[in-house]
Amino acid sequence: MLFAERVNLIQPFRVMEVVRRAAEFEAQGTRVVHFEVGEPDFVTAQPIIEAGRQALLDGRTKYTEATGIVALREAISGHYAQLGIAIAPHRIIVTSGASGGLTLLAGLLLNPGDELLITDPGYPCNEVFAQLAGAVPKAIAVEAEKLFQPTLEAVESHWSAATRGVLFASPANPTGTMLPAQTLQQIAAFVAAENGFFILDEIYQGLTPEAAYRSGLALADDLFVLNSFSKFFGMTGWRLGWLVVPEAAVEGVTKLAQNLFIAPSTPAQYAALAAFSPAAMKVHRDRAEQFKRRATMLAHGLQQLGFKIPVQPQGAFYLYVDVSSTGLPAIEFCHRLLEEFQVAVTPGEDFGVNADQAFVRFAFTTDEASIALGLQKLQSALQRWGST
Amino acid sequence: MLFAERVNLIQPFRVMEVVRRAAEFEAQGTRVVHFEVGEPDFVTAQPIIEAGRQALLDGRTKYTEATGIVALREAISGHYAQLGIAIAPHRIIVTSGASGGLTLLAGLLLNPGDELLITDPGYPCNEVFAQLAGAVPKAIAVEAEKLFQPTLEAVESHWSAATRGVLFASPANPTGTMLPAQTLQQIAAFVAAENGFFILDEIYQGLTPEAAYRSGLALADDLFVLNSFSKFFGMTGWRLGWLVVPEAAVEGVTKLAQNLFIAPSTPAQYAALAAFSPAAMKVHRDRAEQFKRRATMLAHGLQQLGFKIPVQPQGAFYLYVDVSSTGLPAIEFCHRLLEEFQVAVTPGEDFGVNADQAFVRFAFTTDEASIALGLQKLQSALQRWGST
Repeated sequence: MLFAERVNLIQPFRVMEVVRRAAEFEAQGTRVVHFEVGEPDFVTAQPIIEAGRQALLDGRTKYTEATGIVALREAISGHYAQLGIAIAPHRIIVTSGASGGLTLLAGLLLNPGDELLITDPGYPCNEVFAQLAGAVPKAIAVEAEKLFQPTLEAVESHWSAATRGVLFASPANPTGTMLPAQTLQQIAAFVAAENGFFILDEIYQGLTPEAAYRSGLALADDLFVLNSFSKFFGMTGWRLGWLVVPEAAVEGVTKLAQNLFIAPSTPAQYAALAAFSPAAMKVHRDRAEQFKRRATMLAHGLQQLGFKIPVQPQGAFYLYVDVSSTGLPAIEFCHRLLEEFQVAVTPGEDFGVNADQAFVRFAFTTDEASIALGLQKLQSALQRWGST
Repeated sequence: MLFAERVNLIQPFRVMEVVRRAAEFEAQGTRVVHFEVGEPDFVTAQPIIEAGRQALLDGRTKYTEATGIVALREAISGHYAQLGIAIAPHRIIVTSGASGGLTLLAGLLLNPGDELLITDPGYPCNEVFAQLAGAVPKAIAVEAEKLFQPTLEAVESHWSAATRGVLFASPANPTGTMLPAQTLQQIAAFVAAENGFFILDEIYQGLTPEAAYRSGLALADDLFVLNSFSKFFGMTGWRLGWLVVPEAAVEGVTKLAQNLFIAPSTPAQYAALAAFSPAAMKVHRDRAEQFKRRATMLAHGLQQLGFKIPVQPQGAFYLYVDVSSTGLPAIEFCHRLLEEFQVAVTPGEDFGVNADQAFVRFAFTTDEASIALGLQKLQSALQRWGST
């Protein structure tokens, strides 16, 4: 049987092997420290759970509008208003996770053969969404010295006649860094002048420092913004996200949503209405604070062990760590750390080919006791491997 | 701003205007009879609701495996076993609705420029999934004399060097007819000889006569089968479905699912485990019986009023009705029926361009009292319009 060419282009996730091996250890009763998981370790906040249970009791089990129930679009609009950003509800499209949003934007914006600029390292699935539409992802290698974020010059030099737009993330995965405000505005202006589009992935919005801009939409109004209830709102398994699109794109994205999704999950939408309640927001903010404490603890511990963290993350729940001081390639570092010490981390290779041999992603989606244990085990590893 | 060409190819759904106008009438307090809705009128069966509520109480809110939890894949495998069909659980991919399944299959099977054979009339979104992957949907006009289903000869004559496969439905929307077993096998053999693929949409499985084959998989093992918890299982708003794929496709479709969806909804998956319980199956079967009674009642009533129903449906919950005896084009029939008598139906135009001027889809997703009222109003309409 012949499959589409894009299927052969998809790289396997190395972390899947890590996850599988970790599960084997645990099945044998061996404790594993998990730094590989890109999902909050908390269950969804109780007010959202309760709203979901009530929605089911109320029989909220049928299709909704393709772009989401009005009340939720208004609640999201209200969320932006609290950040001082005016976004009309009809520009907000509720989606089946940020993944659903990426499918819609790929369908809306990319013809076969079009180029989409992304970053390396970056979220590995981005290129698959471009390829789904027959388009060609083109990676900009981003460097620690530039916060692992693209510059205007890099966008200009990578832009070709076939390029249609850019997809960048702020904060980014795997590095946790934000696109500097000025760079964001420069790139937005350049892209607009080229008649292109700017997709900004803000799925880690809220897991960011108070001092940073709260959304790229405060800096440039014609962005396509991807967002999600998964991270700050802790609703990964519900598969719910949203897009903010420019006025001119509402009709097209609505038609695509009707045809490709029918509608996002109804119970999830009614549950998400409670995500903005004061009680739920307090839970989300407390958890965001907890992530900050963990970030400090883990970064401090790793640095004391001699690891380099070239850029301190500004958001998300990841540290992108240079392990070259161990003398091991990142992939071997990950392998031996898991096999010998049952500490699971994600090799940089999963996020691109740029400098992947040096980097490993630590996700601090685990509690402080586990972080302490993980640091102890890392110390033992370095002692055994003789690299400190 | 420039959008992808596929966006301009998407036809608006005429039924959206019907839905909007019907809502206006209802907002004014005017009763509307709904024959336009392609979704069961029942709330999800109580055992499933209860399982969903329990899953939330148990904190089932995180990601699952990309292809669905093992227990659900095993339950679906068991469902096929009860129909006498052996499908190993690893060939079953749980999806975000049948829509999610179509995205995965378009990504798996279609390169830009490839042709996909579909039917006219047919499910209107099918072509958008092909276009998402840059492929070209090519419609086979299906006729009442052939049960509104394609024949081997039609597939052969439409097959070109660019054709990669077919996507047919059994039972089909909007006609409710099944692909005859022999034709299905002939087409499967032809497609296999051409190194092509055969996607069979069975989302109305279970809403079918006892005498018919229970799945195309009983007739040909190398089909790509689309299925859903939406129709027979009454779980539309939960957005959950599944694929059965040939062994050779499991790896590719899994990679695509990981990248494009991460995972299907977790609460929906745990709820769906209860969909196969004896208590829930009894509810589903009772509802299927109710649909059959409604089909008989509505078909009989329409025929008494002089409408032609060229093919009695064998499944689903639709009647595809020839309204040309009224002397009105279908689109005008729909418009006047709604404006003058507040009866909402879907014009054939939403399902293709083949004979659409004559046909209207009646969905009997409303109770028998409403069907009786709708028939009365139709009688009044025919009297006023002077065509009987």
